[in-house]
Amino acid sequence: MGTVPLLTDEELSPRAAEVFDRIRAARGTTYVNNFWRALAHDEDALEATWNRLSAVMAPGALDPLVKEMIYVAVSTANGCSYCVHSHTAAAKAKGMTPEMHAELVSVIGAAMQTNGMVTAMQVEVDDAYLV
Amino acid sequence: MGTVPLLTDEELSPRAAEVFDRIRAARGTTYVNNFWRALAHDEDALEATWNRLSAVMAPGALDPLVKEMIYVAVSTANGCSYCVHSHTAAAKAKGMTPEMHAELVSVIGAAMQTNGMVTAMQVEVDDAYLV
Amino acid sequence: MGTVPLLTDEELSPRAAEVFDRIRAARGTTYVNNFWRALAHDEDALEATWNRLSAVMAPGALDPLVKEMIYVAVSTANGCSYCVHSHTAAAKAKGMTPEMHAELVSVIGAAMQTNGMVTAMQVEVDDAYLV
Amino acid sequence: MGTVPLLTDEELSPRAAEVFDRIRAARGTTYVNNFWRALAHDEDALEATWNRLSAVMAPGALDPLVKEMIYVAVSTANGCSYCVHSHTAAAKAKGMTPEMHAELVSVIGAAMQTNGMVTAMQVEVDDAYLV
Amino acid sequence: MGTVPLLTDEELSPRAAEVFDRIRAARGTTYVNNFWRALAHDEDALEATWNRLSAVMAPGALDPLVKEMIYVAVSTANGCSYCVHSHTAAAKAKGMTPEMHAELVSVIGAAMQTNGMVTAMQVEVDDAYLV
Amino acid sequence: MGTVPLLTDEELSPRAAEVFDRIRAARGTTYVNNFWRALAHDEDALEATWNRLSAVMAPGALDPLVKEMIYVAVSTANGCSYCVHSHTAAAKAKGMTPEMHAELVSVIGAAMQTNGMVTAMQVEVDDAYLV
Repeated sequence: MGTVPLLTDEELSPRAAEVFDRIRAARGTTYVNNFWRALAHDEDALEATWNRLSAVMAPGALDPLVKEMIYVAVSTANGCSYCVHSHTAAAKAKGMTPEMHAELVSVIGAAMQTNGMVTAMQVEVDDAYLV
Repeated sequence: MGTVPLLTDEELSPRAAEVFDRIRAARGTTYVNNFWRALAHDEDALEATWNRLSAVMAPGALDPLVKEMIYVAVSTANGCSYCVHSHTAAAKAKGMTPEMHAELVSVIGAAMQTNGMVTAMQVEVDDAYLV
Repeated sequence: MGTVPLLTDEELSPRAAEVFDRIRAARGTTYVNNFWRALAHDEDALEATWNRLSAVMAPGALDPLVKEMIYVAVSTANGCSYCVHSHTAAAKAKGMTPEMHAELVSVIGAAMQTNGMVTAMQVEVDDAYLV
Repeated sequence: MGTVPLLTDEELSPRAAEVFDRIRAARGTTYVNNFWRALAHDEDALEATWNRLSAVMAPGALDPLVKEMIYVAVSTANGCSYCVHSHTAAAKAKGMTPEMHAELVSVIGAAMQTNGMVTAMQVEVDDAYLV
Repeated sequence: MGTVPLLTDEELSPRAAEVFDRIRAARGTTYVNNFWRALAHDEDALEATWNRLSAVMAPGALDPLVKEMIYVAVSTANGCSYCVHSHTAAAKAKGMTPEMHAELVSVIGAAMQTNGMVTAMQVEVDDAYLV
Repeated sequence: MGTVPLLTDEELSPRAAEVFDRIRAARGTTYVNNFWRALAHDEDALEATWNRLSAVMAPGALDPLVKEMIYVAVSTANGCSYCVHSHTAAAKAKGMTPEMHAELVSVIGAAMQTNGMVTAMQVEVDDAYLV
């Protein structure tokens, strides 16, 4: 149980239902995951979040699979279990192979490790990085 | 000032100097950044960290630039200023354009945002993600 | 299962029982939640934590509902699921409406987002903020 | 030095300049802080972030000062120094007194403390919070 | 369910099986916990992580129990539930008494609290700490 | 510059001055570091924080040096630069040698690494840890 109920399709306001239609069309599936059902109580947040997220995650200078892996990395560092699950699923759907997944896990681990070592030693930023 | 002194080349033990040689050879530069100079007090940590890091960040199923961007993402979520600086510099050296950097920043922002919203609402993981 | 057992009322030491009495009196309910039952193994920690928490969360320059929402915000950023649940329940009990809750979620999301963007870009603090 | 240059007014694209005009009008000051100058390289991110942020932080079910304090709380837990500075300044500008600030600091401290204790003991969520 | 399957002994590659043998020998038990079963998909990561971890956690200038408690402290601050469980179990196996555990919880709580208060007030580092 | 001024001895209220006297007596030095000078604006917070902190950090089932190292570990994971500096200094004053410091850094790094790998793979808690 979350701290807000998950809305069924029947419980959506017309404006929330319109955003759900756009989510379904963009993804090519009728399934709408729990995050959007929890957010549907707040139409403004639902619409603004979907609009921005779909723009940010669209193909651009980075391809969508790379973006999903970056998303998983951030979600991991923040300890968001739901987000790790949902964006790992999205990355797999976009072509992440087990080998890519394993490398993603190792890069995250290496980054976490040196983040901790650097912070523990309070290493000063090299002048070379500041010009 | 960090909590450990940064060792100069002259202060390195022979084994640490050997690791520094390998760092320079792998990177094609004489410059060795402060993280390794701080870590050089502990030869085991220096050698193990360099060995693992150079293996993890090497070309594989993911290309090295993608790995650097994932590294920046984790370092950002952990608030490691040194790490953001050093791995952003590494990503730029490996070909990250300003457009790619801007998209990286936006994906990090979007992930942080929904990490927070999901956790605040304690959204339950969809069954669809658990099979 | 936690890493320490939850004490029942019967298992409390006299001093822990006395703190539980004060918790019940302050809250006007016989229910004592799991956090205090886990902490009851350590009488000093139990008493010191309750004493400070009840002082900090009491009406003052900020009203108790605002304090609960700040508590939820911190707990969210720290990824403490138990704390988000218990302090969201406390905020609702103190009058947080669904509209207030939705705004709380959106502010948390916006803060997380710009925290990430600022850190990724390593934006320097404006001189204007330092005087 | 950040990882992207801060744009001066002269360096802004016409669309970025238009967003800066709206920031200035909304705030009633000619001063635009470094976050927006760093973000101005990416017009889409600049516009989308300002639009959403000004909507989220506007008066609603919660008043703007409460929202700023929630913002400070999240930024503190995430260790974003820039964000703590800028949003503490914003909170003071919106009427946060030293007494309110001191209480904000104590609530943040108490939340952090119990977040840690709860997580260390892995306290299970009470059934009472899940209905 | 995790995002990778847990490998049974029968599913291990010969090289992964060899690492499992070393884990069992080092620990004096046939039980191998889920972390290693999840990591076993990636032989390089499995071997490198076990090698480094067993070196780092071995008796040295700090005794293994102290190291386990430090591990629990980091895992708590990062909100890694699995890690808190597994390393608290390891600490208990190495002699952590309930009294030591209670003090560990209180130190973690105190550190979290002042981390938050210091960051909220953006206290400048004393010159005395920088020489 | 922090977000609150640091109080000099002359600016202290009588009650804050009394707490400073106790800090000096407990530590056997006239030096009082910036954290307490920032907190001195709020007498209740100053007194409660000092009282609890000095009790928590006193010799008990764990010795004070171990407690300082745990404090550094938490502060590192939270990215609190001030706290890492001040508690590393305190640990050194209590006898932490360079070898112990190096091991502390490596344990923190190892914990961060596996925290990230576990969370990225969403490894389920073993039943063995839940009884």
